[in-house]
Amino acid sequence: MNEPRIVRVALLGAGSVGSQVARLLLEQADTFAQRAGARLELVGIAVRDPKRKRDTDLPAELFTDDAETLILQADFVIELMGGIEPARTLITQALESGADVVTANKALLANHGPELFALAERVGAQLHYEAAVAGAIPILRPLRENLAGDRIERVLGIVNGTTNYILDRMHTKGDSFEESLRIATELGYAEADPTADIEGFDAQHKAAILASIAFHTNVKLEDVYCEGITGVSIDQINDAKRAGFVVKLLAICERAVEASGTESVSARVYPALVPESHPLASVHGGNNAVFVESAAAGSLMFYGAGAGGVETASAVLGDLVTAARRHVLGGPGLGESMDANLPHRPISEVDTRFQIALAVTDEPGALAKIATTFAEHAVSIATLEQTNDGDRASLVIVTHRATEGALQALVAALESSSAIHEVQGVLRVEGSN
Amino acid sequence: MNEPRIVRVALLGAGSVGSQVARLLLEQADTFAQRAGARLELVGIAVRDPKRKRDTDLPAELFTDDAETLILQADFVIELMGGIEPARTLITQALESGADVVTANKALLANHGPELFALAERVGAQLHYEAAVAGAIPILRPLRENLAGDRIERVLGIVNGTTNYILDRMHTKGDSFEESLRIATELGYAEADPTADIEGFDAQHKAAILASIAFHTNVKLEDVYCEGITGVSIDQINDAKRAGFVVKLLAICERAVEASGTESVSARVYPALVPESHPLASVHGGNNAVFVESAAAGSLMFYGAGAGGVETASAVLGDLVTAARRHVLGGPGLGESMDANLPHRPISEVDTRFQIALAVTDEPGALAKIATTFAEHAVSIATLEQTNDGDRASLVIVTHRATEGALQALVAALESSSAIHEVQGVLRVEGSN
Repeated sequence: MNEPRIVRVALLGAGSVGSQVARLLLEQADTFAQRAGARLELVGIAVRDPKRKRDTDLPAELFTDDAETLILQADFVIELMGGIEPARTLITQALESGADVVTANKALLANHGPELFALAERVGAQLHYEAAVAGAIPILRPLRENLAGDRIERVLGIVNGTTNYILDRMHTKGDSFEESLRIATELGYAEADPTADIEGFDAQHKAAILASIAFHTNVKLEDVYCEGITGVSIDQINDAKRAGFVVKLLAICERAVEASGTESVSARVYPALVPESHPLASVHGGNNAVFVESAAAGSLMFYGAGAGGVETASAVLGDLVTAARRHVLGGPGLGESMDANLPHRPISEVDTRFQIALAVTDEPGALAKIATTFAEHAVSIATLEQTNDGDRASLVIVTHRATEGALQALVAALESSSAIHEVQGVLRVEGSN
Repeated sequence: MNEPRIVRVALLGAGSVGSQVARLLLEQADTFAQRAGARLELVGIAVRDPKRKRDTDLPAELFTDDAETLILQADFVIELMGGIEPARTLITQALESGADVVTANKALLANHGPELFALAERVGAQLHYEAAVAGAIPILRPLRENLAGDRIERVLGIVNGTTNYILDRMHTKGDSFEESLRIATELGYAEADPTADIEGFDAQHKAAILASIAFHTNVKLEDVYCEGITGVSIDQINDAKRAGFVVKLLAICERAVEASGTESVSARVYPALVPESHPLASVHGGNNAVFVESAAAGSLMFYGAGAGGVETASAVLGDLVTAARRHVLGGPGLGESMDANLPHRPISEVDTRFQIALAVTDEPGALAKIATTFAEHAVSIATLEQTNDGDRASLVIVTHRATEGALQALVAALESSSAIHEVQGVLRVEGSN
């Protein structure tokens, strides 16, 4: 048998994902060599401080702080540093030097995807980033390749494990948001600074990437409307539960057809009510799932663990081994087809249903007044539940479909209505008609 | 802009899948051209009788009965005739003539996969068959590519919609097998001759394909143990239900480690008890789902509609558009890596748990006698439920893990025991420890 070919791999970053990738590359070298048709030789790991004591058995001589030199020695660069810089510059240098690139960097892809895709296409290099969305769950390749001959209508994703853990705990245990966050932090589901997760920014990045691939359109991060879960109260969760819904933070990517017949894309992130019977409703704890509706394939769901270190490493190595096989056999990367180039649909034009919780005054005819206000704003009521606590009445109303614009006008009118003490909360409803 | 390239596509077969593929190729020509980087021109459809009146609007001039000549005009051949011959000969001719091939033919792949993979690799052609397993649900590409850097331990698949519909109906409505089959036929979930579905043969083909890809090993069809659902009684379903289980026909592909440390592969199809809390338990009606356990990625599930005409067409067209893009950009197909080449583990050595239903005689000490028989065969009892109907007692026992060999010996001993009237049924338990 011939001496197998060697593919030289440079790793940028040795955090929780990077150290797992390095470990598996060394431990599974023989297996990967068989699958890729070439030995994947780890030539170095670039980190900020190579001398730092690390909690791994990785050979000390692999570590370097000179990423730029390391890149020049590599056929493949795996970027796991995260953040925009220096990742953007290093990936650009890697592609320009002729290397193929695998990354898990959602922020970079969501902000600078198009320039990197164009560069990879120009130089004929491969650029893979399956690990950037939903950890180990295969979702980008299935959207891009398996559904290449279909028409995707909608993607609903639970793509952030921290917020799913918190919302699931509120729903199943009845804990408040603050208490659920505290426990999530204790158990390692939330980081010390949970802002990026609970404010929805992490999901916003993933929504931009999902929408871009699903609709062959460059969806800009700033065009993804984003609300986090910090405003979700236990009352809203319980109102939803009583009405047969579960609250989930969703990344929603939707193809819309305007009245004129032209199509547009809406991408948005917010906590939404999902019917209990919907497959996404039974995604518990820190798990992720992506639900896809397409014209021919119908409804599909992809489900699995969120983005832990070893799970994300699985996705990175899947990209690496597959791309190395392609590298050995020849031929450029497939590139991203962004040719549909659909316009952006602003959140104000998006149609959904709403759950609105109202504290009502004891004014006679309050309910009639409220119903009139809804009618005046052309928002139609689907269900209404009234509860009385002493002389204070609460109303929980679930509407039929209405635009976000109509809803905002309605809420403003309700807030100034003498029939209403307070608009206690508004949540959107997804996954039902 | 340059005139786009043309990729010539020949279609073999115009049944429920083929006619949908042809329709979508014509209707979506512009979209596919953008995605593939070439116009996909349908050059002809080979059928047995081109003159037959068809229930489609497809142009009559596309039809021909001369598949061999049609193939020679094509860059891509889509084979949707099903069955071994003439599909095998035509695909071989297509690959030899330099065409890339997309097929949904599970029987052909399960019986002759290795020879076709070898031929495709030798000529540098692409051979895709995502549609052969679980219709539109992306599963083969995720297993092959996304999990290429992981170690798959087990695949549990509900890959036959007919049997899932029947078992789900028995579980949820309490109908008998015969009644459920009758309704499945009425509603179009079962074919006029349901043998291939209810005897498990369809799932057996899919298990061979799944196991081959998951374990990089040529798993032969005849090495896939197969039991269908015709012997599943409503009593067994109800016994399972009371114990917290749902009965599903599963295609099981498992990596096993022998006492010697060498690894082997077991592939098998049978109706099995699945715990109610398992994600597969909530796959209802005619849907399919594949649950994958792997070392790094953990548990993943892929869920969607079974193999309807338009759903399967989605998978075929996904392969076609992706492969056409590869064809235009250059480079050969990735091929199948069957290099692990693990040995086959026979069903007699497979370890599972069992549900055993027994009709017990009124002999004094019958239960002690039965318990002794279990102990003598080293099969340990996990739960036991006794019900009395007049002077006839029934026992439903769920065991801890035991080999199939030990189980068979136990059942033989039970059948000849004076304590037992009848061994009423045995079902395996999967998805629990």
